[in-house]
Amino acid sequence: MNRSFKFHVEARDSGSLARAGLLTTAHGLIPTPVFMPVGTRGTVKAVAPDDLERLGARIILGNTYHLMLRPGADLVARLGGLHKFMAWPGPILTDSGGYQVFSLSKLRKMNEEGVDFRSSYDGLKVFLSPERSIEIQSALGVDIMMCLDECTGYPASRAEAEKSMELTHRWARRCRESWRAGEGDRVLFGISQGGFYPDLRKRSAEAIAELDFPGQAVGGLALGEPMEERLSALEAAREAIDPEKPMYLMGLGFPEDIIEGLRRGADMFDCVIPTRNGRNGQFFTRRGRLAIRNARYREDPRPVDGECGCYTCRSFSRAYLRHLFQNGEPLAMRLASLHNLRYYLDLLGGAREALLKGTFSGYYTEFYENLRRGREEGRDQGTLNRRRVT
Amino acid sequence: MNRSFKFHVEARDSGSLARAGLLTTAHGLIPTPVFMPVGTRGTVKAVAPDDLERLGARIILGNTYHLMLRPGADLVARLGGLHKFMAWPGPILTDSGGYQVFSLSKLRKMNEEGVDFRSSYDGLKVFLSPERSIEIQSALGVDIMMCLDECTGYPASRAEAEKSMELTHRWARRCRESWRAGEGDRVLFGISQGGFYPDLRKRSAEAIAELDFPGQAVGGLALGEPMEERLSALEAAREAIDPEKPMYLMGLGFPEDIIEGLRRGADMFDCVIPTRNGRNGQFFTRRGRLAIRNARYREDPRPVDGECGCYTCRSFSRAYLRHLFQNGEPLAMRLASLHNLRYYLDLLGGAREALLKGTFSGYYTEFYENLRRGREEGRDQGTLNRRRVT
Repeated sequence: MNRSFKFHVEARDSGSLARAGLLTTAHGLIPTPVFMPVGTRGTVKAVAPDDLERLGARIILGNTYHLMLRPGADLVARLGGLHKFMAWPGPILTDSGGYQVFSLSKLRKMNEEGVDFRSSYDGLKVFLSPERSIEIQSALGVDIMMCLDECTGYPASRAEAEKSMELTHRWARRCRESWRAGEGDRVLFGISQGGFYPDLRKRSAEAIAELDFPGQAVGGLALGEPMEERLSALEAAREAIDPEKPMYLMGLGFPEDIIEGLRRGADMFDCVIPTRNGRNGQFFTRRGRLAIRNARYREDPRPVDGECGCYTCRSFSRAYLRHLFQNGEPLAMRLASLHNLRYYLDLLGGAREALLKGTFSGYYTEFYENLRRGREEGRDQGTLNRRRVT
Repeated sequence: MNRSFKFHVEARDSGSLARAGLLTTAHGLIPTPVFMPVGTRGTVKAVAPDDLERLGARIILGNTYHLMLRPGADLVARLGGLHKFMAWPGPILTDSGGYQVFSLSKLRKMNEEGVDFRSSYDGLKVFLSPERSIEIQSALGVDIMMCLDECTGYPASRAEAEKSMELTHRWARRCRESWRAGEGDRVLFGISQGGFYPDLRKRSAEAIAELDFPGQAVGGLALGEPMEERLSALEAAREAIDPEKPMYLMGLGFPEDIIEGLRRGADMFDCVIPTRNGRNGQFFTRRGRLAIRNARYREDPRPVDGECGCYTCRSFSRAYLRHLFQNGEPLAMRLASLHNLRYYLDLLGGAREALLKGTFSGYYTEFYENLRRGREEGRDQGTLNRRRVT
């Protein structure tokens, strides 16, 4: 266990499992709950590290799958590691690569040893195993590494989910062994799976908890399942996770997912939604979502969100932002990403503040009350047209 | 003549026509010589107004052609004018729309009254005349407007160049009449033409000078002609332009064009090259250009230009920038634009400083000396692959 890594719970909500805490890593302190902007290939898309610092981001996420293929972990290592390569001085967490292997690489062959797949960049064969994933994440030099897991889809049969879960447990042990052999300032988090079967979710969280990682994640959610199934799975997992350790809810989600995750004890969140949906012209606000390409904003002189303090809202009208999106101006992507990241960071920053003040239940109620008001006011709720932006 | 507009020459080079001056406009002071980043459709592509302020840009250019079509001058006016619309607090100059009508709209019909053309956005018929151009630029609310001119191509026969020049003169008178009827804080600059016939260039500059605009531009250069023809045309025009007024050399160019324009008395410059070529991966440095996609930069840990103080050079390696370009990351466009704009702004800022200190001839010599050294060192000189970025 790394000496520079610590987690300390500062305050707990009386009506839920939500809590505020402080994570200490080699690259800095992280007040929790925390949202981690996703820096896929060594860049949070359309946003620079100085933007992230101005936004108050405290930790970002990198994707092992993308980085191992482009530009390659060895190259990043030779250039001084991911922090230096991308000029981000704060903490970095990398996923294990597993999720993207399952979501992006169609031709894959799983076996006990690992997974063979074809790169989504050039079709070349690549092999990923628990040991290889740890090796890559170590080469990247990040603060928090994740175990390689297998993620079953939704729906999946109980047998499938169980088989996949067992493999994930064996891989977690191998990741742990492999990491033990390593050194440096990194820590390794475990990931539990279990599909949408609460008893499997609990068993998986127990099995991973036994390996005594310094932090534990819940993976394999937000695959298209209804909210209730998602929350049942999360609650079952939470029961078996050490409440003194940070809990990371992987890949979720919309603001509603995050606020519900908070209530169920999650401390760390990441998702591409604020940046990806932003690049498609969807803006998040306290009153709901707003699809800026909508003709109703053609001459709208108001900011996207009058209560938001981000550069975009302080400077530009909806009409201007719509103009940028309608004409494919590159600035559009940045301004939307800045706003949406600020929204997500504020959502969690506000929750933290409320937790420290003991007013989280009011914060939670107000969150839904604001959304309800937005619907009453006829906010468009940001239905995206499906023009895909990568 | 607008009362808030002034121009004052502060220093002159003893060996050339280069000079340093100060322009006063309603939206602020502009130390000259000055480079104006091009904000085509109400945005300098991939760069935000706060970036421009950090870079030290003092005035930007907007394109009347694009703005009249997208989002429309009336809409910009209803939203408070171009400064407010794009959140740029400093001075703005707009061109007249003429150049883009000639370069972008293939189906056009010229007559004495004006030009009918089809919008390059949607093919709809549009009419532009001297009066209409002034009306649009007035609606945009900019600080410096330009007369509508006709730009002949290269090569063009003497007869063509002369006919087009005469039309430009008649249009300049109409623009002036139209502008006189207007009001506000705007000024109108004249533009001389004359193709690549020095005697026509001189006649045109004289004809425009007679109309006594507060500033005078030389248009119709950088159309593919050799450097010598360009400079002869410029020198001929300069002879007839009032040396107490600011001279604007339109649409030029590469750093060599700018330094030669400086020596021939130009005070104001604009060009899309730093931003457009930046978006294609071409970086400008004191030692010449650098095409960042080149495989030689794959593991190059050095900044693009070790002498440059821009955010890009202070933060990122060539290897990282190449990675961004190779993978189509949107951040690439911004980082390259920031660097190249800084290069152009520094080129002119350095020239101004040298002029004030009386050391411009040394500055000029060093400029070429640095380029020569770059070639000796095997700098790639940034040959662009022709993958077009808009």
